[in-house]
Formats: sequence, structure tokens, C-alpha cells
Amino acid sequence: MLSKNEVKYIQSLGHKKRRAEERLFIAEGSKILAEFIREMPQQIFRLYATEDFFQKHTEAQQIADKRVITDEDLQRISQLQTPHEALALIRYFPEPDEKLTPNGWSLALDGIRDPGNMGTIIRLADWFGIETIICSPDCADVYNPKVVQATMGSIMRVKIIEQELGDFLAKQNIPVAGAVLGGDQLGSYQFPSSGILVIGNEANGISKELLPFLTQQVMIPRFGHAESLNAATATGILLWELKRNG
Amino acid sequence: MLSKNEVKYIQSLGHKKRRAEERLFIAEGSKILAEFIREMPQQIFRLYATEDFFQKHTEAQQIADKRVITDEDLQRISQLQTPHEALALIRYFPEPDEKLTPNGWSLALDGIRDPGNMGTIIRLADWFGIETIICSPDCADVYNPKVVQATMGSIMRVKIIEQELGDFLAKQNIPVAGAVLGGDQLGSYQFPSSGILVIGNEANGISKELLPFLTQQVMIPRFGHAESLNAATATGILLWELKRNG
Repeated sequence: MLSKNEVKYIQSLGHKKRRAEERLFIAEGSKILAEFIREMPQQIFRLYATEDFFQKHTEAQQIADKRVITDEDLQRISQLQTPHEALALIRYFPEPDEKLTPNGWSLALDGIRDPGNMGTIIRLADWFGIETIICSPDCADVYNPKVVQATMGSIMRVKIIEQELGDFLAKQNIPVAGAVLGGDQLGSYQFPSSGILVIGNEANGISKELLPFLTQQVMIPRFGHAESLNAATATGILLWELKRNG
Repeated sequence: MLSKNEVKYIQSLGHKKRRAEERLFIAEGSKILAEFIREMPQQIFRLYATEDFFQKHTEAQQIADKRVITDEDLQRISQLQTPHEALALIRYFPEPDEKLTPNGWSLALDGIRDPGNMGTIIRLADWFGIETIICSPDCADVYNPKVVQATMGSIMRVKIIEQELGDFLAKQNIPVAGAVLGGDQLGSYQFPSSGILVIGNEANGISKELLPFLTQQVMIPRFGHAESLNAATATGILLWELKRNG
């Protein structure tokens, strides 16, 4: 059985401040962890998993610090309502360099606050082959357990840079697109093959200070009555449109 | 101050069984409730709101059963982490007739389990002018507070029918599209102007029993490495593509 102190320590990594001090974050679930073990075993600081998990995933043997735990213990350390076989403490990724992929699109997130949206956007970026995401400092913490969970493993594959977006965009010399009220209707406009797509905050859209950097203002046409779209679903539609004819 | 019994009663509507017995569900937040008061005041069974809310929304005066409550009381009855000014008990909508809009697309949801996905899909439907959603009985309950919240008011405007999808699709004589592995790449295919789009379960996709009903199997092209897309973001991309050239 895990000691109270160990359980407390793991739970404390649910908090941003503690995570940043320890430079460790939590990932959960047999599917995501099997992927971590396969793709970047060196990032795993410690693996907690049930007997079942270790039997199904023999590649987990290579992890130096691993503990077989019971379902009850997993329940005690999990952040999920229905924990699933394994939880690991993962090392923070090395700070990525700030260069963008010269050919292709990058995403810039302007104050995406909801961890679910943030994770879903990272997963979308991975699906659409976007290599780099630049996050403003007021985005949800990328190592928040809910973000990690919503990425479904894509956090391993997308380069994420935190930077003040005004400073960042001022230094770029490529097309910058973003959705704003009154922009060109999506579908009437062909996107270039590379650039930066800015995604605005859930409630307020793209910040006023960033609007001057947009070289292309677009809008997802509305056919019904909803007042707005969820930030992650809007990102999905925009990325598909970018790639559709790209 | 609200009595313990009243608080308990409201909290009990967080459970599907109790909701179905009372035929009442919970909606929260000043924005959604202002919309409910404006668009369908007759559906509001009881409104709990702060002094602030009543001052800003004078149209709330028309609600027969309304209670001014403190922020502390709101905190006690709210299902949200950060309650916002108002909460109401809303009457279940009348059972809609089962006819589809003859011109246009409808959505059929095959076991969408996550309330956030469910609500986001309803909001997307409203944005794209989809009038009817047919849900399989194993979808998340449309009156679940998390579903209601994620619809951002769109629950008022989209007709939602619960029905076994095999029975339902067997009776239709219009195109039925759905995303499956190995389907035609989206973008290479022009959708007809009306039909039914089937959205599969988060983990398993469209059920095997429903595959024979699909007249058009499509696939969202993948440019990167994510294994799959979130059900709601996939729905957004598919609906945009349906409407794009429609």
C-alpha cells in the first residue's frame, strides 16, 4: 500500500506551483501511458500501475522506477473519476527552441483558459500536422492534468512555447490569420501554405492589441442561431480549412 | 436563506432519475438564463438569482416563481465551480415529433457519452442550422447539467429526439453519412443538400449494426500523428464540410 506521504506528494502535483517546482506532471490511463512508454520512456520519472497493466505491457519493464499498485491505491492517487490501470509522473519536456517550422502553419493561443479546450486544441494540432503552438502566459497550464488528459498523448508530439503573443507576432514576417466578427467568410478565401493562426479567448475572442498583427481576418459562417462556437471546435474547423486546399 | 430541504431538492436534480420524475432540469449562469427568460419564459419553473441579476435583467420580473438569493446561497445550490448570478429549474421540453426537416441535414448521435461533447455538439448543430438531433438511448442525458451548460443556450433551439438508431435509420430514405476508417477523404466529396450525419461513440466510433445504413462513408484526412479526433471537434469539421458547398 502506498504511504500517505506518497499519495499526498502525487496529489500535490495537481497544483501548478508544485509541478513547476518539481518539474513533474501527471499522466493517466493505460492507453496514454503505453504510448509514453513506447515513444519517450526517458521522460517517465515514475510509473504506478496495476498487475494487469504490467502483464499487458511488457515494454513497461524498461522503466527504472516502477511500482505495482492495487486498484485501491490507484483510486487514491488518481485525478480521474474512473482511473484506468496506470498513472505516471512525467518529467517536464525540455524548453523548445522558439523557431517555427518554415513551411507550414503554427497556432498561437491567446488566453485559452479551459484545460479541456487547451488539450483538445493540442490534439487537433497533432492531427493536422501543426508542429508548434505558441501560448500566451494566461493560457491554461499545459501540464495541468486535465490538459494532459484531453491531449490523448498528443502532448508528446507538439512543441509548445509560452510567450507574450504581441512580442512574438511583432517578430514574425509571415501571414497571420484569425477569426473575428466581420472577417472574410471561410470558404471564400484560400489560405497560403504557411502562417500563424491565432485562436482567441473563449469569452472575448482575440485581444484588441493583437488585431493589428492579423493579415487575414476570417469568420466561420453561421447558418443557425448559436451566438458563438466553442474555441476548440472553431479551431478544428479553421485547421481543416487551412489544410483542405493547402 | 434557502432551507436545507430546498438546497437538497435542487441538488437532487443533478441525478437523472430525479430529474425525470420531476421533469425539471437545472440551467445556470446569467447569460444562459437571460436568454431563457427572453426566448421561453414559460419553460422556467423557478428562478433563483442575485439582486444584481434582477437589476440588470428587468425582464425577469415576468417570471412568476422567482427568488432573490445571496451569493452564498447560490454557491450552495450551484453545480458549477464559479456560480454566476442565477440558477433556474426549467421544465422539460415537450416531446418533439419525430419528423425530420425535409430539406437539410439532421444529426444522429450513436452513444455520445461525455456530457461536454454532447452539449458542444448541440451548440454546433445550432450554429450550423441543424434543426433535429436523434440520440441513441445510451447517449448522455440531454438534461444533465453539464450538457445544458455546454450547449450555451442552444438546448432551447435544437429539437432532440431519443430513439434506437437502427430502428430510426431503417425508416429513412435519404442519404446517411458517417465517418469511418477507410472512408472517402473529406474534401474530395460533395455532400448532397440533405441527409443524416451519424456521429459515433468517443471510443468505438459508429456501431457495427449501423454501418449498413451508411450511404456515404467519409474520413477526415489526417496530416499528423494523433490517433483520433475528439467527437465534438470531428462533428464541427463534418458539419462545416456539409454546409461549405451546400
